[in-house]
Amino acid sequence: MTVPPLALTMGEPSGIGADISLKAWLRRGSDPFFIIDDAEHLARRAEVMRLAVPIVEIDAPERAIEVFDTALPVLPHGIPMCSGLGQPDQDNGRAVIASIEHAVRFASERRAAAVVTNPIHKKCLQDCGFPYNGHTEFLGAMADAEPVMMLACPTLRVVPVTIHLSLRDAIAELTSEEIIRCGEVTARALERDFGIRRPRLAVAALNPHAGEGGNMGTEDTEIIFPAVQRLRASGIDVRGPAPADTLFHERARQLSDVVICMYHDQALIPLKTIDFDHGVNITLGLPYIRTSPDHGTACDIAGTGAAREDSLVSAIATASAMARVRGVAR
Amino acid sequence: MTVPPLALTMGEPSGIGADISLKAWLRRGSDPFFIIDDAEHLARRAEVMRLAVPIVEIDAPERAIEVFDTALPVLPHGIPMCSGLGQPDQDNGRAVIASIEHAVRFASERRAAAVVTNPIHKKCLQDCGFPYNGHTEFLGAMADAEPVMMLACPTLRVVPVTIHLSLRDAIAELTSEEIIRCGEVTARALERDFGIRRPRLAVAALNPHAGEGGNMGTEDTEIIFPAVQRLRASGIDVRGPAPADTLFHERARQLSDVVICMYHDQALIPLKTIDFDHGVNITLGLPYIRTSPDHGTACDIAGTGAAREDSLVSAIATASAMARVRGVAR
Repeated sequence: MTVPPLALTMGEPSGIGADISLKAWLRRGSDPFFIIDDAEHLARRAEVMRLAVPIVEIDAPERAIEVFDTALPVLPHGIPMCSGLGQPDQDNGRAVIASIEHAVRFASERRAAAVVTNPIHKKCLQDCGFPYNGHTEFLGAMADAEPVMMLACPTLRVVPVTIHLSLRDAIAELTSEEIIRCGEVTARALERDFGIRRPRLAVAALNPHAGEGGNMGTEDTEIIFPAVQRLRASGIDVRGPAPADTLFHERARQLSDVVICMYHDQALIPLKTIDFDHGVNITLGLPYIRTSPDHGTACDIAGTGAAREDSLVSAIATASAMARVRGVAR
Repeated sequence: MTVPPLALTMGEPSGIGADISLKAWLRRGSDPFFIIDDAEHLARRAEVMRLAVPIVEIDAPERAIEVFDTALPVLPHGIPMCSGLGQPDQDNGRAVIASIEHAVRFASERRAAAVVTNPIHKKCLQDCGFPYNGHTEFLGAMADAEPVMMLACPTLRVVPVTIHLSLRDAIAELTSEEIIRCGEVTARALERDFGIRRPRLAVAALNPHAGEGGNMGTEDTEIIFPAVQRLRASGIDVRGPAPADTLFHERARQLSDVVICMYHDQALIPLKTIDFDHGVNITLGLPYIRTSPDHGTACDIAGTGAAREDSLVSAIATASAMARVRGVAR
């Protein structure tokens, strides 16, 4: 079985995507990847950062394997770019989107093992007409799927049921149906892509002390508890709703393979507390594998060398491991 | 300077208070304490648990010092008790409250260095007419003060501005005034009782990404930001509102002495993720020092030996350290 190379997207070109991709190549292991970018843009960034990274253009993903050991393979998106460090330029929007579209096509055709995306600048893209809230929504629309976002570090996986909403709206929009959907997609993905035969799900409560039987909020009994029951009835190993402050310490983490969380910070606080640098964002429920670092474009430090590549390196390793379990091969 | 002994309260007698107090004495160090309890009740529990803890009745806190090395000093509350393991009995309510009142009196008179409370069973006390939501409210009312709750483990201190409310109510009841009050009381206490000359406060945002400038909720800009400004204007070293998922990892914890949090789980998730067993609850803003373990009565495991004394041991050590910094002496 030959595992195809991983396809990295360019991300926002004025941000740290190039920086961390170059650094990730310097730390390369046994998972070959190529980046869909502009070779000149990457070469310039390597020069600014004084990184000895040879760059070689390729014309097909398959060529990446032979190049990867000695140079960073770049598959050109073919769209002219304006240079600029630290300042997003709307004129680059088309190139940013093309890079994602090419990566998705290669992954869908199994010419790439997975899509690993560098961070995009949502506001800049939206200002030039991109109608999505981020990668996850864009990829979902392209695949006609409703993806689920999982975040993972080596000792914890979390799935926020609501994501980029104010805390007030997250509470208002929480439904049993969405908890069930996230639970089902997650359980399937842990089996299929992580090789966990019977994944154990823990579901976090919304309110302190899981609402103390209705004394502190009714959502735990009225929305979350019925969802847990339905997931269990469908054969999933699931427990909860459990007080959120009891689910993330070391002993608790042995007891479940993933924690389904009700809102952004309930998932992100423990993950980033435990491991700030190695978090990976994984999109479940797409026809192909997609991961990304769990940080933003950090335009303010682009080119300075300050950006850490750890999260991208983890995203690459995670995508590669998932592709092996799923058996992505040509 | 002679530091007086610490006064432990009995807590709910059918719960684990006796278990962990006996175990804490077995792990005793250089911080003498006595417990306000019933000697027979303690002796029975020691027998059930097969713990070799000699128990000696004392008639004044001062006597604890000479007894402590060789026996657990018990100052009787003098109220008859009904026995019973695992099942709270309303008839014991008077004794539970008397134990707290005696401890407060001794601490107020500086005959005890601090009050360390064992967990009480709120519902049982409330059913027999206790009008408070817990220790903190009861102690506040007795002292005519508005106390602030801080939780601490060796590497993190957190202060939840709202506490035992549903998440929905916590958002609705959040005010700039209360954030300012908590910040001021906390800053004063860190100076006075923890010896931190210029405490650094971090204030957590309510919404994900600190609301992204109003895109995800307005509370961060309208309620929290003005409170931070007012605290800064009053000379306090404070930053925020910062995205809550950026405040608790190891590097971030070096940058502040305490994190002011907006709701229960925002404070408790990181604390219990980092250190589930050694969390201590500290009441700030009282005329005396009060700490407690940060767990409940755990009536279901009382007498079994399963209860861990770590949190009580930490509460005792923390109270003692605070008393030394404050200079509590007779």
